[in-house]
Order: sequence, then structure tokens, then C-alpha cells
Amino acid sequence: MVHTLTQELVKRGHEVTLFASAGSKTSAKLHSSSPEPLWKSGGDALAWHAIEIEQVVKQSDDFDVIHSHLEFLPWIGGDRFKTPLVTTMHGRLDLPEHRKLLSEFRDWPLVSISNSQRKPVADLNLCWIATVYHGLDLEHMYTLGDGSGGYLAFVSRLAPEKGPALAIKAALKAGMKIVVAGPIHEQDRDYFEAEVKPLAKDSNVEITGELDDSGKNEVIGKAAGFLLPIQWDEPFGLAFIEALATGTPIISCRRGSLPELIEEGRHGFLATSEVELVEACKKVATLDRKECRRWVIERFSPARMAAGYEDVYARLAPTS
Amino acid sequence: MVHTLTQELVKRGHEVTLFASAGSKTSAKLHSSSPEPLWKSGGDALAWHAIEIEQVVKQSDDFDVIHSHLEFLPWIGGDRFKTPLVTTMHGRLDLPEHRKLLSEFRDWPLVSISNSQRKPVADLNLCWIATVYHGLDLEHMYTLGDGSGGYLAFVSRLAPEKGPALAIKAALKAGMKIVVAGPIHEQDRDYFEAEVKPLAKDSNVEITGELDDSGKNEVIGKAAGFLLPIQWDEPFGLAFIEALATGTPIISCRRGSLPELIEEGRHGFLATSEVELVEACKKVATLDRKECRRWVIERFSPARMAAGYEDVYARLAPTS
Repeated sequence: MVHTLTQELVKRGHEVTLFASAGSKTSAKLHSSSPEPLWKSGGDALAWHAIEIEQVVKQSDDFDVIHSHLEFLPWIGGDRFKTPLVTTMHGRLDLPEHRKLLSEFRDWPLVSISNSQRKPVADLNLCWIATVYHGLDLEHMYTLGDGSGGYLAFVSRLAPEKGPALAIKAALKAGMKIVVAGPIHEQDRDYFEAEVKPLAKDSNVEITGELDDSGKNEVIGKAAGFLLPIQWDEPFGLAFIEALATGTPIISCRRGSLPELIEEGRHGFLATSEVELVEACKKVATLDRKECRRWVIERFSPARMAAGYEDVYARLAPTS
Repeated sequence: MVHTLTQELVKRGHEVTLFASAGSKTSAKLHSSSPEPLWKSGGDALAWHAIEIEQVVKQSDDFDVIHSHLEFLPWIGGDRFKTPLVTTMHGRLDLPEHRKLLSEFRDWPLVSISNSQRKPVADLNLCWIATVYHGLDLEHMYTLGDGSGGYLAFVSRLAPEKGPALAIKAALKAGMKIVVAGPIHEQDRDYFEAEVKPLAKDSNVEITGELDDSGKNEVIGKAAGFLLPIQWDEPFGLAFIEALATGTPIISCRRGSLPELIEEGRHGFLATSEVELVEACKKVATLDRKECRRWVIERFSPARMAAGYEDVYARLAPTS
């Protein structure tokens, strides 16, 4: 998301400095604090964040605005930043520490990635500047698929909060095939063995491993529907947008950001019960796949995201 | 260590505010940011740290000196702290990010927990104020044992850097029994199965699970020697001090803080090869157990630690 935004901002004529690890591909000016990606280095990621924050503080005079994706960490720097700093909140906000955290740091301007993300802290008097939805770059990925496979696709981590067991049950009750693809993380291993694996005995269920990008495009693009019945309030859910970009309509639950991501009955169906999920599976193939993709291009383009953030920047740094 | 220091400082007449989770036992004034210990809450520990740091910043005027054990995190706050802040570094300093971090934040006063801890960054021009060794409160724990079990004890995490496999091999070559006690963490499971477990077939090897405090005292106090041949440069090594407090001499490797923790030939032996380790096992029982305990009382008492920190505080806040 940061890559897509940065590329688009440069394209629109902004001078952008990207603070990221060395080797990052960007058309912005790259300021690298760490020599390699943090997921690769296996060291103390937090130390690298602190180094980067300090480097931003020290040159904060050089910028009109600082756009942070490090959540609350830079806020410790307070007025050491000599220019406005706005933070896109990327995660959930429903834990007790989030309330306390946002109360303690209540003057920092914030951007939400969906309106629903703000709900758990809606009663706090925070400085929400805007909701800006993520944009998806369709230039090299996510081509329109024809849905000819006739199956439903669950493509995500096989974790309880993503609802793979419920997805399989609903598909089978609807008399449809389902392909389940995604990684199983260590902490979800027990759940998988107990709740998901036993359902795979049915010949209508195919569990593949994790797919690469082109594999995802292929599997989802051929699916009649993207069945990911989330069991938590997902703040955004990029996976849904990616599926729609391949023309595949969504079947999920009416919670979190989902009512903001699709128009129900047009780009998919949002259920509140297993019965409704089964009904949705049966009728999902009737939806217009080209409209699903068009919707993404209209609502979730890099240009729209960048324009959203341009408004945010202009409000924070009006003289620039 | 923070508990022991705080108790001792209060005893010596200082006014101390302890920032810690609710329910912490302390004779200091407790300021609790989180409602329960962070290891218990399972939430976002870092968020609680940020909350706590911000609360310290906001009342930093109230204190003569702030003593931080949160490593580098508070440094992001820079001159927002209205009173001197000194940091005891508790961890290793030999990763690339540590060099970079300390260079970036080079003006912060630091306390090391051993002189050897500073070595990897000795060429950087940092503000080391002192080395202050940890103090051990012997009032309720660590009674003198008689070493009557005749075996060697390895009590620590069963991790490669602690050398349990080497410990067992050395003990067996010396013709001695060894008791191996400690937890096996997830990331060390493969190491344990491949390197440690096969050695346990020998009847002279007993592998127990993790021990509680009184179990530790019992097992170590009855041991002829505490055999923990560390395979990394441990910055301090509280386990060694605890063993000495029960009267049990140390057998380990000549690296990290160890040459600072004991006098070789008096409180234990430090080896540089497996042959030397075996020799040490054979002669460890000849050392004077009471002298080992006396050494801890003299060098690693809460009072000595507190006096060390009083000097540090006085240098930072000379007018108070």
C-alpha cells in the first residue's frame, strides 16, 4: 500500500522521500535506515524503527508533511517533529490498550482505512482527518478471470478469524466445490487440525498450500465466488478488493469494513448467518463480473487513494 | 532486578515512583499504566510501553532523575524529558542495529551491567556513566546448600547458547552425574531433540523439567558444581550469582561477563576447551562453598547495587 501510494504521488508531481529498507523499489527518493528488509534480517526490528524515527525527526524540517505508517511509535517524539505528522492507522483498535493509547496521544492527526475501523474508539475525541481506502495497482497484477471453474475460492490465512471451516460447510451445503488456499501459521495449527482438516475428506473440498501471486490470480479468477466469511471486524481487507479485481464477487459476513467495500447484491453478498451464507453461495454466479472489476477501478484506484491523501496533506500543511 | 533496586532505594530513604503494571509489589509509590503484567495480557505490549513513556514524559518535571529499563524506546522522546534520564542496558549490544542505534542516540547516558557488555561498541564514543552489577536479595531465597548430591547441575533454558549438550558430554567424560533442568522454548525444540535428548540415555544423566524457585535452590544447593558452559557473550548472567549464593561453584566458559563475576580458582573455573571443562568438573568439589556465598554477599548485594546507582544519579542530578 505504501509502495502504491508513493509511486502514485511521484507520478502526480510530488517530491517524496521514502524511509524504508535499502533495496526498496521506488521512484521516490529512498532514505534507507536498515540494510535489508526487516522480515529478512531476523534481528531487532524495533531498533531499526527507532533509528528510522530518529532520522526523520532530525530532518523533519525538510518536509512539508510526514506520513507515518509506524502506528504510535513516532508519537513518543512529540513536538520534536518540526512539521505536521499524520498517521494512517493500519490495525484493529478494539483492544483495551488502544483506547488508553489513543487517549494518551489524543492530539495526533489520524487517517482510518475504513469508517468501521474507528467504531471501537468512536467515543474518544480524536483527530480523525479522513478515511482513505487502499488503492490497488492493476497494471501488473489481478487480471479479469472468467469464473469458469464453477467452484468457490477461500484464499487467505487458514485462521479462525478468517472462517475457513464455516466457508467449507456453507459451500458443501450449497452443493458446490470449494478450493481452500493459504498458509497455516504456527498458532493456527491446532485449529486447522481440529476444525478444517476433517472437512477436507469430502471430495468437493480441495485444500492447496499457499499460492504465489499468479497462482492466486488464476485460482480466484476462475472461481464463481470468493467465499471468505470473516469472524472479526477486519479494518480493511485488501483480499476482497483483489478478488473483485479478478471479477470474482464476494461472499462474506456483514461486519468490519465489508459494507463499505462492496454494494450488496451487486458485488457480492454479506450474510449474518450460515443459512444466508449458503443462499449467497447458490446465487453468487448470477452477479456481473465486469461490474465487480469496474467497481475496484473506480473506488479503489491508486489515483483515488493518492487524491484522498493529497487532501489530508493539504489540510495539515496548508501553505505548501 | 528492578524490584530489588527499588526496595533498596526506598530503604535508603529515597522517594521512588515505580512505573509498572498494576498489582506490582513494591514499597515505592506505584504508578501503574497497564492493568496487569504484560506477559499475562497477551495484547500489544509495545502499546503499553508507549503509554507508560508518555506518562513519564508528562510528569518528568516531578523527578530529579529517571531511571529507564526500556532500552532505546524512551530516547525517541528526546528533550521532552524535563529531567535527566539514564538507561541501564540489559541486553546484548553486538548486532549491527545496536551499533547504528547507539550512534544515532549517542548522547544518552548509559549504565552497563558488566564491562564486557560494552565491548562490541567500545569504539563508539558513548556516554557510559558506570558499570553496576546486579544485586541479589538473599533474604527469602537462595540458602546455602551442602553440595552433598555429588552431581553437577545445569539449570537454565535448554538452548544452544547455554550449551546443555556440551555440559552433559563434559560431565560424563569426568565420570560424574549431571542433572539438567530448565524449560525448552519452541524455537529450541529441534536443537533439544537432535543434540540433547540422545545424550540422556546414559544413566548418569537426569533431565527434569523446569523447576520452581525452591526446586532450583534444592537442586543447585546439593550440586557439587554449577555447570553452564555458555556459548555466547552473556551480558551479565544472574543464574551464576544465584548458584554461588547457594554455595555452588561455577564451571563455565571464559567469555562474556564471566571473568567479572567470579575469581577463577576460588569461585569456579572458566574453560576455553572441552578438555578444560572436563578437568574443571573433576576439581570443582574442592572449592570452598562458604566463600562462594560470601562473595555474592560482598559483591552482588542489593546495597552495593543501590550505592552504584546512587553515584550514577548524583552525577546526573548534582543539585538534588
